Amino acid sequence: MNILFTSAGRRNYLLNYFKEIMGDKGVIIAVDSQASAPALADADLSFTAPSISDTSYIEKLKEIIDDYQVDAVIPLNDLELPLLAKHKIFLESGGAKIIVANENIISICSDKWKTFRFFQKLGIPTPLTFLSLEDTLNALSANILHFPLILKPRWGSGSLNVEIVNNEKELGLAYEWLKTRLKTSSLNNLNLSNSHNTILIQEKIEGQEYGMDILNDFQGKHYDSFVRKKLSMRSGETDRAITVKNKAFSHMGQILAEATRHIGIMDCDFFLVGEKIYFLEMNPRFGGGYPLSHEGGIHVPHIYIEWLKGGNNIDRFNNYVGDRTFSKCSRIVEVPKPVFDQNSTKVSFQRNLSL
Amino acid sequence: MNILFTSAGRRNYLLNYFKEIMGDKGVIIAVDSQASAPALADADLSFTAPSISDTSYIEKLKEIIDDYQVDAVIPLNDLELPLLAKHKIFLESGGAKIIVANENIISICSDKWKTFRFFQKLGIPTPLTFLSLEDTLNALSANILHFPLILKPRWGSGSLNVEIVNNEKELGLAYEWLKTRLKTSSLNNLNLSNSHNTILIQEKIEGQEYGMDILNDFQGKHYDSFVRKKLSMRSGETDRAITVKNKAFSHMGQILAEATRHIGIMDCDFFLVGEKIYFLEMNPRFGGGYPLSHEGGIHVPHIYIEWLKGGNNIDRFNNYVGDRTFSKCSRIVEVPKPVFDQNSTKVSFQRNLSL
Repeated sequence: MNILFTSAGRRNYLLNYFKEIMGDKGVIIAVDSQASAPALADADLSFTAPSISDTSYIEKLKEIIDDYQVDAVIPLNDLELPLLAKHKIFLESGGAKIIVANENIISICSDKWKTFRFFQKLGIPTPLTFLSLEDTLNALSANILHFPLILKPRWGSGSLNVEIVNNEKELGLAYEWLKTRLKTSSLNNLNLSNSHNTILIQEKIEGQEYGMDILNDFQGKHYDSFVRKKLSMRSGETDRAITVKNKAFSHMGQILAEATRHIGIMDCDFFLVGEKIYFLEMNPRFGGGYPLSHEGGIHVPHIYIEWLKGGNNIDRFNNYVGDRTFSKCSRIVEVPKPVFDQNSTKVSFQRNLSL
Repeated sequence: MNILFTSAGRRNYLLNYFKEIMGDKGVIIAVDSQASAPALADADLSFTAPSISDTSYIEKLKEIIDDYQVDAVIPLNDLELPLLAKHKIFLESGGAKIIVANENIISICSDKWKTFRFFQKLGIPTPLTFLSLEDTLNALSANILHFPLILKPRWGSGSLNVEIVNNEKELGLAYEWLKTRLKTSSLNNLNLSNSHNTILIQEKIEGQEYGMDILNDFQGKHYDSFVRKKLSMRSGETDRAITVKNKAFSHMGQILAEATRHIGIMDCDFFLVGEKIYFLEMNPRFGGGYPLSHEGGIHVPHIYIEWLKGGNNIDRFNNYVGDRTFSKCSRIVEVPKPVFDQNSTKVSFQRNLSL
């Protein structure tokens, strides 16, 4: 069985979890737009691909899927999820399975305003959120909203461009500055559309932050969820966490899973304040916190392989235990030099190939 | 030989480089204020210590140095360098070597305004830097300074609170917001002193960024330097880089080394614009980019051990080669649970102890 990871980036652990299962019985293929992406060093076969925003991206992926008889594609970057969902039928035409949620759920997850409204409709507590300075000031005047507040880009991931403000003066200042900064960065990305309502203003919840991996099968049926109490973040990713087993959390995971019917794993963030759970964000893909859950005993790669084989004997891969602390540190890999294949336009780094 | 790393944090690679050399002939000890610090998982013996700002910190370090016959102490956090330099005689009284620069050099490195003036005095090109909005506006009017500019905290490390501005309106806005944010964070740290002149405004150099490890011996005599072309940063640390051998760069390293006479390794940043080298920052300790140089063939841990033994046969540990690309990815470690030792007030995680 051959598995292709797109936007493989720095997800070496994930590729290696799959490699350990496959042994000689499959090839792990990694694609990234940057030749220095460390995951390219650990894959059996690596390709640099055009950027996601390049019109040829999907064609190039299809070429790799066909050339290397790929059985499953696992995308790892938020920005390419809508693209892969949109072209799913084309990409799957040769028999490969694209493990990606549907376009509607991806759109709800990538737009934090839609996420807020989604939680509200489900009756799930979520921080009060506003899309304009005016609405925010009105809510403050009406005493239904209180400082401190968080400003963040409506679309955006990681901790980039997140500001905390403690009073009206700071709110005005930070809002102006963030608006300027987002305009500059969108100009740099040649993405001029949608310059209005790009900043969310959100109640800052003072509580303990958690991460949760919610696992559905490939038909969107819920299996289980796996919770981590976050100890620290780094570059917007969970860096240190304690595994947690808790029925109330699992119940919330199930409610969400049944509402999204997402495919495979979905990473969520929530806050616990007293006994109240506030949901914040969802990302329908492997999140940066997954390896911390994995080390805690849930083996999603094994479960994916079982499902891809058409089986469902998966409980044996679920040995999740609570109260274990895991932390990330750095591993250094040498990135191989590209080898130019004269018979194709692809630049690849062929290593340990055992097709 | 027993080596103690303070503020060991996530420097697992460094501890492991030393462990590989020592084998059974020494103990690697790690200290951090946070029990979840991943380095505590890889050390032979680990301690949680009070915070650096706690008055008992130095006493606790001294206790560990004495109890475990520590031969050398390697501090890894900028904030504790001045403290260890100040208490060097006390900490070294039992025979341990504290590998730290003198207080004057540490002060020049930690204060980016002093760094700028230091480079200027040496005649080393460095980005034009201003300490007030007024001076900046005057320089802009006089046409000796041009946008874009960078705003950053005068004291500070990593990429935190760094802003780029493209015109006068943005400059005013970002300056106001940064001032507010720094005031809030210093209030949170109960550090009310020095709220003036805390923001540097600096010419933004458009060029290729490099990192350089400049190695002096423990008497401050220069040995060699090791350069990396930076490909990407993450959380203010070099994340991906290509090793570089270049005589002009080494020559600059030597000039700096002879001026600072720092002890051991010092991490520097510079920009290359055409053939002109602009120096930016110095950190007199192992930097986050060191492992990328290490994998490129320079083995500073071996050199440190040789020097600690009183030898100087070190060229055999210098096999640095250029044009190799290294990238960081994540490694996950389980952090052991603290064991409370009833005979002492220390909480330790004793593992694999082979004193």
